[in-house]
Amino acid sequence: MNLNDKIKIILENAKVDAIWVTNCYNVRYLTQFSGTFGHCIISKKGHYFFTDSRYELIAKECVPKEFNIVKVTKNFTDEICACLKSMDIAQVGLEAYELSYLRVEALKKLLELEVKTLDNVILKCREIKSAEEIEYISKAAAIADEAFSRTLEYLQVGMSEREIAAFLEYQMKLLGSEKPSFDTIVASGYRSSMPHGVASDKKVQRGELITFDFGATYHGYASDMTRTIFLGRDIPAEMERVYMAVLRAQELALTKIEVGMKMSEIDSIARESLKAEGLGENFTHGLGHALGLEIHEPPYVNSASESMVEEGMVFTIEPGAYLENQFGVRIEDDVAILKEGIKILNKTSKKLICLDK
Amino acid sequence: MNLNDKIKIILENAKVDAIWVTNCYNVRYLTQFSGTFGHCIISKKGHYFFTDSRYELIAKECVPKEFNIVKVTKNFTDEICACLKSMDIAQVGLEAYELSYLRVEALKKLLELEVKTLDNVILKCREIKSAEEIEYISKAAAIADEAFSRTLEYLQVGMSEREIAAFLEYQMKLLGSEKPSFDTIVASGYRSSMPHGVASDKKVQRGELITFDFGATYHGYASDMTRTIFLGRDIPAEMERVYMAVLRAQELALTKIEVGMKMSEIDSIARESLKAEGLGENFTHGLGHALGLEIHEPPYVNSASESMVEEGMVFTIEPGAYLENQFGVRIEDDVAILKEGIKILNKTSKKLICLDK
Repeated sequence: MNLNDKIKIILENAKVDAIWVTNCYNVRYLTQFSGTFGHCIISKKGHYFFTDSRYELIAKECVPKEFNIVKVTKNFTDEICACLKSMDIAQVGLEAYELSYLRVEALKKLLELEVKTLDNVILKCREIKSAEEIEYISKAAAIADEAFSRTLEYLQVGMSEREIAAFLEYQMKLLGSEKPSFDTIVASGYRSSMPHGVASDKKVQRGELITFDFGATYHGYASDMTRTIFLGRDIPAEMERVYMAVLRAQELALTKIEVGMKMSEIDSIARESLKAEGLGENFTHGLGHALGLEIHEPPYVNSASESMVEEGMVFTIEPGAYLENQFGVRIEDDVAILKEGIKILNKTSKKLICLDK
Repeated sequence: MNLNDKIKIILENAKVDAIWVTNCYNVRYLTQFSGTFGHCIISKKGHYFFTDSRYELIAKECVPKEFNIVKVTKNFTDEICACLKSMDIAQVGLEAYELSYLRVEALKKLLELEVKTLDNVILKCREIKSAEEIEYISKAAAIADEAFSRTLEYLQVGMSEREIAAFLEYQMKLLGSEKPSFDTIVASGYRSSMPHGVASDKKVQRGELITFDFGATYHGYASDMTRTIFLGRDIPAEMERVYMAVLRAQELALTKIEVGMKMSEIDSIARESLKAEGLGENFTHGLGHALGLEIHEPPYVNSASESMVEEGMVFTIEPGAYLENQFGVRIEDDVAILKEGIKILNKTSKKLICLDK
């Protein structure tokens, strides 16, 4: 879909003449602008991109020709309000799902136009990814795969989780990642029982499970992957049992995904599988989430989700089982829903790795 | 100031019985919790911290005993609303400067209490840093200093900006930084004329200026520093002239800072200094900003700022001069306002470096 068609649909869904786009991810989605200070107006009467002098050159390089680029010299709010008032439109939509209450109240006074407080109309549009967006996420996933492989070679007993995470992030950056898509998790031993234990100064030891949960960013698009490995030669039977149970739950969910299915149903498949192995209580979070310009985007794959699987969606499948203060296992892939079927974007094997160092 | 006193002052300033704290930096400021999913209530009737199962163990480790830790099992919003309703309070404040319009509208209906939409009362409190907070920022600055020194040794002609930034970030992480405090800028040659040119695939060449703008994070606290170096032996006279003019403006501003002075006055000192050297038009942004848990915090050091310098503040002084499509220079330090005077937290020299490699 070209940019003008995309904008037309957004304006129709929002039932407004114009939208003042303030959310930085939505701005990037529409304009390719990746700086920290840019807003845009999309409207039936033309499109505008606003930034300040710091980003003017960058904007000229990346913002599509459909937008008039405006360098704001004095007051951002005043100049955008003036532009809107000059546009001969009846009403303007504000991104009220993310714009603060106080900001919206202030703008209502300033704008002297009918203001419509919008739910996430652009974010909704972002749920269905283009081939190019899926390509970017795939590339981010490939970077993460390769960096992980290098990290397993580099890893030695006695290194701190932080050192390992630092190496992993460095490799991702060398491979073309803009930045980690979130704070890298390297959680070893008892810390692997914390689903979100970011890398600490704890040293990794033989006999421990280590969970890596991390991602790269490519052209602004995030990848997200989790693998749990065993450090040592002979994994204790209980750890292996839990690992295999989580893996089975993950693979079962992956094979069942199809267009038109409810997200909650996918969650339920993995959950029932773990329950059948006595680990229902140990799977304490949702099964997954969509990702794209943000690491967590709707739709969510959990029991409360009302969303259905649609072609073009990209989301994670990440069951886990956590035994408090003992150990935990999580396995996560990113899947894209393509016309020809579902595609797993990560290539790293999920076979249990016993890293004998 | 201890936690209870701090909370007392915040509630008094906000003129409410309780505040539902949702901003993740404010949550961290009050509770030390650094995960991505935690809210708290501070009130005259006791304090509560809410998180879900993923973060329960981490919360138990870090959240101060003044807070009752509540693990939310079903619906976050419902459980927090129920807690507030059970508390025998007359009204609750919401962080309406950051909470979305739609969210506040929904909560007003759900809460069945008087809801007060608050401006940034906690952020205001964060403007004055404790000795411990200044220590954390200093440590983040020291990490950045050391990583920069290692990067200058590592840097070779023909490396890409991205490779250099990757190395710099890796060194910061090895030195104990949690993550870069923002997207690292390495901007060489004509790209140094973009005040916010994040590291690209451009290769650095002899005869170019290179601007490094980056920071570390320690205990959640950010540092921020900029240095511009020349790659080669003999710097062209015009580049040297601009470098020296920016350095003089920065040092002049630093020497003039004192408690009670207006931020706008500091900005004006640097700006006038550059103007006197014919570079007024080339200094296209504000002089600085405070920093702490966030890389940009109020107060700002610019011509529009109404704030005054107060003991306990930490902010940047970062004049620059940009010659479009040619080159740019920026020099930045973090300064802390202590009882005994101002302290520059970065130790890296500002003497013009000609890196002859």
